[in-house]
Amino acid sequence: MATQGQVITCKAAVAWEPNKPLVVEDVQVAPPQAGEVRIKILFTALCHTDAYTWSGKDPEGLFPCILGHEAAGVVESVGEGVSEVQPGDHVIPCYTAECRQCKFCKSGKTNLCSKVRDATGVGVMLGDRKSRFSKNGIPIYHFMGTSTFSQYTVVHDVSVAKIDPKAPLEKVCLLGCGVTTGLGAAWNTAKVEPGSIVAVFGLGTVGLAVAEGAKAAGASRIIGIDIDNRKYDIAKNFGVTEFVNPKDHQKPIQQVIMDLTDGGVDYSFECIGNVSVMRAALECCHKGWGTSVVVGVAASGQEISTRPFQLVTGRVWKGTAFGGFKSRTQVPWLVDKYMKKEIKVDEYITHTLTLGEINKAFDLLHEGNCLRCVLDMA
Amino acid sequence: MATQGQVITCKAAVAWEPNKPLVVEDVQVAPPQAGEVRIKILFTALCHTDAYTWSGKDPEGLFPCILGHEAAGVVESVGEGVSEVQPGDHVIPCYTAECRQCKFCKSGKTNLCSKVRDATGVGVMLGDRKSRFSKNGIPIYHFMGTSTFSQYTVVHDVSVAKIDPKAPLEKVCLLGCGVTTGLGAAWNTAKVEPGSIVAVFGLGTVGLAVAEGAKAAGASRIIGIDIDNRKYDIAKNFGVTEFVNPKDHQKPIQQVIMDLTDGGVDYSFECIGNVSVMRAALECCHKGWGTSVVVGVAASGQEISTRPFQLVTGRVWKGTAFGGFKSRTQVPWLVDKYMKKEIKVDEYITHTLTLGEINKAFDLLHEGNCLRCVLDMA
Ligand SMILES: NC(=O)c1ccc[n+]([C@@H]2O[C@H](COP(=O)([O-])OP(=O)(O)OC[C@H]3O[C@@H](n4cnc5c(N)ncnc54)[C@H](O)[C@@H]3O)[C@@H](O)[C@H]2O)c1
Ligand SMILES: NC(=O)c1ccc[n+]([C@@H]2O[C@H](COP(=O)([O-])OP(=O)(O)OC[C@H]3O[C@@H](n4cnc5c(N)ncnc54)[C@H](O)[C@@H]3O)[C@@H](O)[C@H]2O)c1
Ligand SMILES: [Zn+2]
Ligand SMILES: [Zn+2]
Repeated sequence: MATQGQVITCKAAVAWEPNKPLVVEDVQVAPPQAGEVRIKILFTALCHTDAYTWSGKDPEGLFPCILGHEAAGVVESVGEGVSEVQPGDHVIPCYTAECRQCKFCKSGKTNLCSKVRDATGVGVMLGDRKSRFSKNGIPIYHFMGTSTFSQYTVVHDVSVAKIDPKAPLEKVCLLGCGVTTGLGAAWNTAKVEPGSIVAVFGLGTVGLAVAEGAKAAGASRIIGIDIDNRKYDIAKNFGVTEFVNPKDHQKPIQQVIMDLTDGGVDYSFECIGNVSVMRAALECCHKGWGTSVVVGVAASGQEISTRPFQLVTGRVWKGTAFGGFKSRTQVPWLVDKYMKKEIKVDEYITHTLTLGEINKAFDLLHEGNCLRCVLDMA
Repeated sequence: MATQGQVITCKAAVAWEPNKPLVVEDVQVAPPQAGEVRIKILFTALCHTDAYTWSGKDPEGLFPCILGHEAAGVVESVGEGVSEVQPGDHVIPCYTAECRQCKFCKSGKTNLCSKVRDATGVGVMLGDRKSRFSKNGIPIYHFMGTSTFSQYTVVHDVSVAKIDPKAPLEKVCLLGCGVTTGLGAAWNTAKVEPGSIVAVFGLGTVGLAVAEGAKAAGASRIIGIDIDNRKYDIAKNFGVTEFVNPKDHQKPIQQVIMDLTDGGVDYSFECIGNVSVMRAALECCHKGWGTSVVVGVAASGQEISTRPFQLVTGRVWKGTAFGGFKSRTQVPWLVDKYMKKEIKVDEYITHTLTLGEINKAFDLLHEGNCLRCVLDMA
């Protein structure tokens, strides 16, 4: 391509300061260095982690930065030594890398690759510990190793999942985070079994994807819990069989669920990020075997608690990041499943806007009837 | 037997009031009713649960009662419908029943049988919700469905494990609680694998049995953590390869263990009953897969806490009761393993006393050089 090896000037939404509107403006994107890939982002969705860091509440948030981590695009150019993707490949950038060589990747027990973590955690690239983004010479930090709120981004090669070029990028971008997380929480982390009784706390995209995953795994009852009654009609389409609004009950929600299920559920999922709900999710599990998975991300400094007796009597407390999926290996597999109509994606997209409307998209994130809003980057 | 169908008057250590010395005196033990077994207890050990209830700190403790739950004896007589044991059988009474018919037993996922729980939890027998113990007509509560601090006790048939009559009862009584719990925590709950790095917090009988179980499972490093330096020499005999005394370090113990292990252990076990240590045990687990098992029993009302991020990044928090062993099925198997010298038991017995010396035995329980004290009931 004509742009290869060149600095590209393109539009990006820059978060100059916490909690101030993002500014869509021209930025400079340096060429990829060894082991790096420059991607033309075509579609990106917004997720709560973007909003959380943007709000300034994330103590590890660095500014100025370019947020965004749920996207799809096409490889524009690759740095030295990059062999697994080439210009023109359709890809999903993944905030969870997969190097296949580190202690984590080799363990076979986790998807939390450590290869680029030290760099992505502080907004830079691993090679020179610098950013590839700048504006008139002022460096702008990367975010989660993805920074997809830019028409071009640079990521580590271990963070790029190459997907079927026939897949519609405006849909499968969602497989970069929320939907994948929910499905994986049910399949990989909890390993929901046929006939299980499941409780899903929080029916946003993540919780609905958990319900979808649990249904596919053969759960017999999927109890959806949300404080927003409007979620129930939506949730039915994703496999939720019963709806409980905690506000309709005097009793603690864990007791309500225990009563509904003759002693508790087999699997529960917290998909909100609320530490009190995390406790309720554990405590509504069945004695002897109930397993609760923390999916929601709580604000920094908050803690979960329970009586240890809950664990001694057989409940298990777990968590999940990116649903336990190995990104480069399994995101393409999820795209294939979508193409075979085995998993939903379109149904989570309630709004589409343009990059220029990104601040409006953040507002939508806090409205009950928005699941995912996809931005067209063109 | 001559005593069959008769009330037996025998010696028992009665806890008339919380935190007052036990009184060894004559009590009346009624004959077993339908589904019940009367056992002549020959040897009993003491465990911390006895001391805890006796102290009055257990809000569910009922007085007067006969404590004790780690014992062995011979069946004296059986009630109607009891088919699996008969007078003369050598048995270990088990506080965790196994009915093989309830939801729990049938699940295949837990050893927490529910059949007699409602009755044993309140110190009575299931049939008539009354006690079989009395003193001059005053009923004395049962404890944990076992009450082994009596020369004769009555238990539910689902709580009796029939063992090899050649096994020395003065030793295998320990398989009624502590040793079994520790071995099972390693084998059944954590499922320690060959090559694993393990941390054991608290090197009493339970912690040492965890170490023994981990060693048998092929763990490559077993780090023992105790505030009492005398435990180290003992612990080496049970498989502990390294010893850490938290008092020798400025840093939090979880950090000390992380530093020693390049990021944390594969499995950790809390065998003390201290909620701060439970947190440390979780937090010293390796990101991505480390699993922590709560074995110790904390005082009522205490809570465990951590940041949910610990779980989201792949640590798992579990607990165990009776090491996950199915009592009637597996205690006899453990006795056989002991007879084949595949597991230690003798090595946990540091003191032997008589029933009359039981108050002294309780004092010993709080001394660092006592693992288990076995009482000869004769
Ligand atoms: N672990 C991971 O890898 C991972 C990945 C993606 C997202 N997340 C996290 O998952 C969480 C959910 O994401 P989402 O996009 O679905 O969010 P969302 O805001 O769309 O959905 C949250 C839902 O929870 C409901 N809710 C709020 N408070 C509640 C309460 N007290 N009881 C019951 N329901 C309540 C809301 O009405 C809403 O429907 C967020 O915390 C996000 O950061 C985690
Ligand atoms: N879950 C179950 O089924 C089950 C069964 C039996 C016993 N238990 C419990 O297991 C626990 C251990 O039993 P045990 O008989 O081995 O007890 P123990 O008192 O003999 O051993 C406890 C050990 O912990 C050490 N310790 C105390 N505080 C410590 C600290 N802060 N850091 C490090 N070490 C510390 C002590 O020095 C001692 O060596 C008890 O809480 C008991 O009630 C649970
Ligand atoms: Zn890796
Ligand atoms: Zn049962």
